[in-house]
Amino acid sequence: MIKKVLAGLLCGVALLTAGILIGHYGIEKSGGSTSASWVNDVGRDVDEKMLEEFLSQVDNIHIQENLRALTKVPHMATTAGDEQTVQLMLKRWQDPDSGLDQAWREEYMVYLSFPDPDKPNQVTVVNASNSALHTAREKEKAYTADQNHPDVVQPYAAYSPAGHARGKLVYANYGRVGDYKLLSQNVDLKGTIAITRYGGAGRADKAINAAPHGVIGVLVYTDPGDINDGFMSDINETYPHSWYMPPSGAERGSFNTHYGDMLTPYFAAKEDTYRLPVENITGIPPIPIQPIGFEDAYALICELDGGPAPQDWQGSFNCTYNLGGPGFRPTSAFANSDVKLDVYNYEEVKNSSNVMGVIRGSVEPDRYVIYGNHRDSWVHGAIDPSSGTSVMLELSRVLGQKVKRGTWRPRRSIIFGSWGAEEFGLIGSAEYTEQYFTKLSERTVAYINVDIAVLANAFLRASGMPSLQKVIFTAAKQVKAPGQDSMSVYDKWIQYANRTSPVHGPIPRVGYLTGAGSDYAPFVHHLGITSLDLSYTYDRTKTKARIYPAYHTAYDTFDYASRFIDPGFYAHQAVGRTAGSILVRLADSLLLPFSCSDYAESLEDYLHVGLDLYEEKLHAQHISTDPLKIAVANFRKAATHLDQVIRRSDLANETPLKVRRINDQLMLLDRAFLNPLAFPNKYGYRHVIWASSDSGAATFPGLSDACSRAMSSDKPSDWADVHYHVSVVSQAIEGAAYMLLDVI
Amino acid sequence: MIKKVLAGLLCGVALLTAGILIGHYGIEKSGGSTSASWVNDVGRDVDEKMLEEFLSQVDNIHIQENLRALTKVPHMATTAGDEQTVQLMLKRWQDPDSGLDQAWREEYMVYLSFPDPDKPNQVTVVNASNSALHTAREKEKAYTADQNHPDVVQPYAAYSPAGHARGKLVYANYGRVGDYKLLSQNVDLKGTIAITRYGGAGRADKAINAAPHGVIGVLVYTDPGDINDGFMSDINETYPHSWYMPPSGAERGSFNTHYGDMLTPYFAAKEDTYRLPVENITGIPPIPIQPIGFEDAYALICELDGGPAPQDWQGSFNCTYNLGGPGFRPTSAFANSDVKLDVYNYEEVKNSSNVMGVIRGSVEPDRYVIYGNHRDSWVHGAIDPSSGTSVMLELSRVLGQKVKRGTWRPRRSIIFGSWGAEEFGLIGSAEYTEQYFTKLSERTVAYINVDIAVLANAFLRASGMPSLQKVIFTAAKQVKAPGQDSMSVYDKWIQYANRTSPVHGPIPRVGYLTGAGSDYAPFVHHLGITSLDLSYTYDRTKTKARIYPAYHTAYDTFDYASRFIDPGFYAHQAVGRTAGSILVRLADSLLLPFSCSDYAESLEDYLHVGLDLYEEKLHAQHISTDPLKIAVANFRKAATHLDQVIRRSDLANETPLKVRRINDQLMLLDRAFLNPLAFPNKYGYRHVIWASSDSGAATFPGLSDACSRAMSSDKPSDWADVHYHVSVVSQAIEGAAYMLLDVI
Repeated sequence: MIKKVLAGLLCGVALLTAGILIGHYGIEKSGGSTSASWVNDVGRDVDEKMLEEFLSQVDNIHIQENLRALTKVPHMATTAGDEQTVQLMLKRWQDPDSGLDQAWREEYMVYLSFPDPDKPNQVTVVNASNSALHTAREKEKAYTADQNHPDVVQPYAAYSPAGHARGKLVYANYGRVGDYKLLSQNVDLKGTIAITRYGGAGRADKAINAAPHGVIGVLVYTDPGDINDGFMSDINETYPHSWYMPPSGAERGSFNTHYGDMLTPYFAAKEDTYRLPVENITGIPPIPIQPIGFEDAYALICELDGGPAPQDWQGSFNCTYNLGGPGFRPTSAFANSDVKLDVYNYEEVKNSSNVMGVIRGSVEPDRYVIYGNHRDSWVHGAIDPSSGTSVMLELSRVLGQKVKRGTWRPRRSIIFGSWGAEEFGLIGSAEYTEQYFTKLSERTVAYINVDIAVLANAFLRASGMPSLQKVIFTAAKQVKAPGQDSMSVYDKWIQYANRTSPVHGPIPRVGYLTGAGSDYAPFVHHLGITSLDLSYTYDRTKTKARIYPAYHTAYDTFDYASRFIDPGFYAHQAVGRTAGSILVRLADSLLLPFSCSDYAESLEDYLHVGLDLYEEKLHAQHISTDPLKIAVANFRKAATHLDQVIRRSDLANETPLKVRRINDQLMLLDRAFLNPLAFPNKYGYRHVIWASSDSGAATFPGLSDACSRAMSSDKPSDWADVHYHVSVVSQAIEGAAYMLLDVI
Repeated sequence: MIKKVLAGLLCGVALLTAGILIGHYGIEKSGGSTSASWVNDVGRDVDEKMLEEFLSQVDNIHIQENLRALTKVPHMATTAGDEQTVQLMLKRWQDPDSGLDQAWREEYMVYLSFPDPDKPNQVTVVNASNSALHTAREKEKAYTADQNHPDVVQPYAAYSPAGHARGKLVYANYGRVGDYKLLSQNVDLKGTIAITRYGGAGRADKAINAAPHGVIGVLVYTDPGDINDGFMSDINETYPHSWYMPPSGAERGSFNTHYGDMLTPYFAAKEDTYRLPVENITGIPPIPIQPIGFEDAYALICELDGGPAPQDWQGSFNCTYNLGGPGFRPTSAFANSDVKLDVYNYEEVKNSSNVMGVIRGSVEPDRYVIYGNHRDSWVHGAIDPSSGTSVMLELSRVLGQKVKRGTWRPRRSIIFGSWGAEEFGLIGSAEYTEQYFTKLSERTVAYINVDIAVLANAFLRASGMPSLQKVIFTAAKQVKAPGQDSMSVYDKWIQYANRTSPVHGPIPRVGYLTGAGSDYAPFVHHLGITSLDLSYTYDRTKTKARIYPAYHTAYDTFDYASRFIDPGFYAHQAVGRTAGSILVRLADSLLLPFSCSDYAESLEDYLHVGLDLYEEKLHAQHISTDPLKIAVANFRKAATHLDQVIRRSDLANETPLKVRRINDQLMLLDRAFLNPLAFPNKYGYRHVIWASSDSGAATFPGLSDACSRAMSSDKPSDWADVHYHVSVVSQAIEGAAYMLLDVI
């Protein structure tokens, strides 16, 4: 009986247990959503295995072949060559096996400037009887078939007005305000032509600064000392024998000071969009300007009259750069001759295309990580911009493959942008941000820009908002340096460019995006989107070149890139992997890898520099610096607080609305620094921390410029403007701190 | 045996079943997050039962007692009475049983204007020998103890400059531009004093429009015809015998055209904030101006010289309003006399407080529904603003009780704001939006304003963004009309104010928030936050009063409100319940109750009105209207699309990030209409759909005003501005449409 009872009991226990097991594991909970399939998805973080696999698939040879395809023909904005690259991008991004979810083109009608192919711009030396004693080269000398391509555009200054100027030549160094001032103290500049060298001032400024002195035309060239590490008389020392600029090389460029389509500021440039009257455009040369090669500049400068210019005006030609005249030495073959400048540029509103491609996010499709680069070049544009585009295409190929195979889909959406008409002033990217202003403002996590991917193959150059420093470092540590087995990109970087952080100790130096050098500008300055810009760069101890020597010339070709910039394309690969790791981390991380404490550190740096430079002066004017100090301290406190909230959370298991909330705090932080009224005279600049600054001090730009002006003028209204900027900056920082505090 | 086996089997089945039940319901699933407690919370919608209970608890007697407490003493901004109301709000919102999660005060240092208590402003009729023949009342006549309170401020025009003007009197109707123009064609206005009636133009405009004609001082009064439905000679017909304005009643007011602290535009007015030089302030009277009661106006106007003014200049005094002179009739006792105006106002930067209170949201604390009203009055301010504050306190009491008892907590955070210094130009609310600009922009779902809760007890007046129409209707249908058993607030409303919607058929008319009449303005115009404003109002067939007659006088007291405006406080209760239902629906709905299709309907209305008025003229100027038409059509398509997405979703059971995404699309829609550069001359106006318009046409305001100017001047630059505004509006609408489309 006991046995039977025991057996019955055991049987009962077994049945009960079986029941419990079935009940617990065998039946999905109904009602509520406790069994919802999305519960695990929403808590998923970066898959490091997938990421490693992805990076290993980023292939140098693919990048090389992308570059070859992109640089077959010159592809200046809106030309037939540009259209070929549009088609190439669309084909790749619409590829059924390795394309994106969607890709399309978007067109804008934008104001461009071209030389007249039938009437090339000319620079001649003419004597009193109008005989041409010297004529500058119209095009660069051909060393490969590339330079002979019929679509190679003549070197010219985009947005230089057409015009004909004839006058005595003077040398004006870099064409800065101070250069013309000094010159004008020695020479009557009325009716002269000034020859200037690239560097030291913005392109357009060389003409804008000249005109008030009566100068009627400007020439610009690249001094060998600024690009070739000295004057190379031996032609065998320059390209095609080295990376150095050949004597006929001339840098093209856009000669304007605002970015975006100049006729439609703050509007997308569509067919019927309101356009400014052309005569209302500001920031372009008021007088004709034309670039020439240094061989022609040599022929002119070494013949100039006058006495020796100051030491810092001397370039590297083997002659003395004279200040004086105006005109040529009486002993010169050019004695009494004028320089004649004939510019036939014309402006035209033309259709320029962006090519867009997207991978839809699985969990948060309404959060965007944007990765972009421009597509247009001046000539073949192998380095600028095709090195970046080659890398972008390789990243999109590998990620696209995973998406098409169904093995991966990012948490957030990824948008790739191939911008048009960047060379004319970041036009494609600016129009994009103007057209989709609110949508992008509200949803964009970050913008990654890789334009010139590789300037040289020494180490990584990264610039961006301080909040991104962390993820850049993580990525850089994960990727091997080009040609290195044991060193990472990070290891190389810290060797070349480093600083000591009070918190992190010695770390690589991440730059700030204070200018408008590439398509990050509209994202940073107009939208206030957390952005970064990456490239591989050169060892400054080995060259003084202001940029890679073929920049904006007809020598920036596949041949040049593959032989002199990055043989084997390993630096391209390293940049691609670093950018790719950042991209996937931004797109896939559960918690955005942004550090607001690192932002606090930069604000503290800015504060200290600003106080050192200006505090005494402000106090003398009874302008309190307390609001600034308090704001930065409040920001630090708020950042520390948010870091704590994050540390104490179990974000993978708490409601997905919690991590979303924190991510929104991080994502929108930079938006709090926008003030559309802060810089009424700086088109497109709204980010009060990173705006460009005339003073150049590493502190709050508006405040710094206002202080410079006030200290120089000592006018009460200028000091009032200083006070205004103290309020602009301190209230923006307070506003940013509010974003980091408890949400209620 | 069979029995035993059966018993054993049954027992076994029972045990197994018990086990299954225990296993399924008794044990939380572990691993993953499938057992997470938040899964059900995040999908929860409005609890209609809780809502009904809440509304039933909103009590008329509590509202009455709130009003009594709030109106004990005059509480003009920054006075001792104001501080008493600050303390009252804090006490209520910090109450341990019915308070909010947190409450605190926030202070701003703002620029205010007061009469000198020691030297009252004076208006006198003086003859050639400087004898005063008539002196206007300095204060209103006392009918109850309230008017005798020592803190009753003299009627004055805030921001009128101090000054002394003496000259011949002229009658200038409403003081509009056209009124002075007509007057100046008949009289030399140099050195005159103009008497104007309230209405027809902004307060400050009556002086601003006068000064260019040489007028040196302005009086303003309320004509009985505009407030009392006719001239009441019998004192027994006005308060305290009816709601009508007594003969000595004078409307106080702020005489400025911009809102917010005038010294710190776009900044929070903190101690060290940059302040404009006082002489740079625009939009205030350039000459002294002073309000007087109609008994004094009667004494002056009926003695004026000249011939009969046009019919539409005639008010309701039993005399002819003459145009001419200047000065009094030769037959008048005032013959040859001047009017002398002595204004002793002074300006002062003073501390004004907002009182803030919050209930933290349970699921989405980072989404805010803001409910606010100002606290400051001109005198006792029973109706304006304390009727609204009494309602707000009752809503916060009932909701606070639920929170304190743990029986309810909203999905989203609720922020209550009791704004300071509204009467001086919406200062408290404006400073709040300036201080927390980005935080509020990014997180605020909606702003609900209930200022004057009850003007009269006929029907609901609601104004707001069209997307809110739906939730306003839902709430209005849910609440019984005051004094009605069978009719809802909605039923009454549709009787009095209705329109026929192409989609919905006959519906009550919801107005638009195009002005700056109360604290919604900074939310709508500066932040672009979806807002609404509610009150109960009067039957226009029964009165022509431009506003309730005690408005801004010493008669706006508890006695007045409880005897003539809303005896029994049932209209207050109905407004409170309607606003309360909207508040809880906005805070608790899973899907925000916003209709973007209703927004599309309003844009279509605006488009059609605009095309009817201007299309022909635009085409004659070769300005295409296609961008507008296309933008509105695209918005409609996008709205229809989002409606479909919503219909096809099962939001309670899908990932909470989906409903969040859709809610963000709805919440941020209005932000896309902001353009900080659209109205460079209209301080604080950035919303291109709802900005105020000088033309007054029910269409896009910037475009409409630009068209008016261009049609009148026919200057090419004015037509260019029209084209500019076509682009402003069409690109804003396109930008809004992008917000509603698929997020990628």
